[in-house]
Amino acid sequence: MGKLKKGSRCTICKAKGGKEKAVVFLPHHRLALCRDHYIQWFEKRVEKTIKEFRMFSKKDRILVAVSGGKDSLTLWNVLTKLGYEADGFYIDLGIDQYSEDSKNLSLRFSERIGRPLHIISLKDEIAPIPVIDKSTNKPACSACGTAKRYYMNRYAKQLGYNIIATGHNLDDEVAVLFGNTLHWDIKYLKKQYPVLREEGGFIRKVKPLCKITEKESAMYAFFNDIEYIEYECPFSEGASSIEYKEILSKIEEKHPGTKLQFYTNFLKNMYPIIKEHYEKESQINICKICGEPSFSDICGMCRLKKAVEKSGVHN
Amino acid sequence: MGKLKKGSRCTICKAKGGKEKAVVFLPHHRLALCRDHYIQWFEKRVEKTIKEFRMFSKKDRILVAVSGGKDSLTLWNVLTKLGYEADGFYIDLGIDQYSEDSKNLSLRFSERIGRPLHIISLKDEIAPIPVIDKSTNKPACSACGTAKRYYMNRYAKQLGYNIIATGHNLDDEVAVLFGNTLHWDIKYLKKQYPVLREEGGFIRKVKPLCKITEKESAMYAFFNDIEYIEYECPFSEGASSIEYKEILSKIEEKHPGTKLQFYTNFLKNMYPIIKEHYEKESQINICKICGEPSFSDICGMCRLKKAVEKSGVHN
Repeated sequence: MGKLKKGSRCTICKAKGGKEKAVVFLPHHRLALCRDHYIQWFEKRVEKTIKEFRMFSKKDRILVAVSGGKDSLTLWNVLTKLGYEADGFYIDLGIDQYSEDSKNLSLRFSERIGRPLHIISLKDEIAPIPVIDKSTNKPACSACGTAKRYYMNRYAKQLGYNIIATGHNLDDEVAVLFGNTLHWDIKYLKKQYPVLREEGGFIRKVKPLCKITEKESAMYAFFNDIEYIEYECPFSEGASSIEYKEILSKIEEKHPGTKLQFYTNFLKNMYPIIKEHYEKESQINICKICGEPSFSDICGMCRLKKAVEKSGVHN
Repeated sequence: MGKLKKGSRCTICKAKGGKEKAVVFLPHHRLALCRDHYIQWFEKRVEKTIKEFRMFSKKDRILVAVSGGKDSLTLWNVLTKLGYEADGFYIDLGIDQYSEDSKNLSLRFSERIGRPLHIISLKDEIAPIPVIDKSTNKPACSACGTAKRYYMNRYAKQLGYNIIATGHNLDDEVAVLFGNTLHWDIKYLKKQYPVLREEGGFIRKVKPLCKITEKESAMYAFFNDIEYIEYECPFSEGASSIEYKEILSKIEEKHPGTKLQFYTNFLKNMYPIIKEHYEKESQINICKICGEPSFSDICGMCRLKKAVEKSGVHN
């Protein structure tokens, strides 16, 4: 998102003979837009991404992973406006005020758009994140990721949804891609696609905001008066993804378009080669404890549960 | 290369009961070394790299691409000390004082180690770099690269050498890899290996310093009293490789070992997949004008010559 020249008019209004003032400038797309046309542009871009990667259709039942942040609420709003059947799923992580605030904002938004929000609490399933953090020597973000993936998949199936949609934006995807590339972690690189197809007990997962930047998403939320949690999760401090985002933003500043190109060229040039090469290698098992799908004998969530039980730290 | 603690002793001397002071600390290898053991360590590391990638043997005739910089002179020194048959090849690029100075330093070094230095002048072959720079709208570094690759290969064959060795160090390789990865340029990524095998008129090219950092190479030159050109080529200013080197050095500072890991993991995890996939795609032709090998009908050098002739700019 670039600096708007004083007195700029909306490109689309101008083409139609109108004179509406532009409020947003998208240098990479060469567009200056008014509020209404920005919203229109944004929703079209998301719909185009959904179709480009064949994420889902109007017949599917979609469960949106809602965190209370700008991206997930924006995604939920767009999907609903575009006419998709999309409900919300919120996991209360038990991170004190942060979880309280984000739950309330998610609930309020659910009421506003008139779509149900399913809520589960990590406290009832295993333990709140601060307890897990104390019980294991894994970083909290890793346990949180395991829990979110596990319960999203499990409950989506139970509740009869066939698609999980998450709010990962371009900056998120690019930061993860950058980290995995620095280590040439092929195991992770091969999962870096905006659609993970359904197989062996996993349901389809999609990222419709994968071509939307963080700033674009925040701007959409702002123009639609979406109230979201504005402060970061207290456990996220010092995460390497934040470091990578800073590096990439510096490169982007000098060479606009680098982020999008890094991501889309990966999908176009590199991903197909990796996928072809590793097609037959990943085998999905069934967890011996909980019966959910897993890449090993016992799934990550059940291993986490054991670690928490063994530690003796209580909720 | 890290900060040496005051009073540190050489790790290897200490193991042998000696007390020699350390003058270099290699944090990533957990070694503090005296001058002699640093030189030994360095030469062993280069020899190990030569063997790991099966670059060449004592039976081969090696032509070292000598620029007068620390890396090429260091490489020439190491190869000679290790008992390989390695002569030098210098291309006078005609870049004023820079070329004068680097040629004299290369000649002096050639005399010191008692190995011949073959010299050609770009002025006699096509035109000096400043003239090429004015005649074409390509960056000077691109023309310079084309000329070096072309004449190195052509003269090595004429002079009866079967191996070309260049002084590219880890920092060089990592910066190029980083740039090619940011753009996911598979065409270039598939050439990013420390050995390019001989085929269709190209002779084998190797990079024995690919696991040596810039600082390690400078330190080796310093300990061996190798005089080299210390200032940069005046045309190199603002090159994107310099920008990438800065970014990577910042990451390295925070996470020591990242550069080496980025490079070696690429070679181990990614390169084989790319190579396998593109094995059959590159076809080497013969240039219709000069008869040298080329990936298109007319080679890059002949195209460059035409551009210079057409421009009418004179030497």
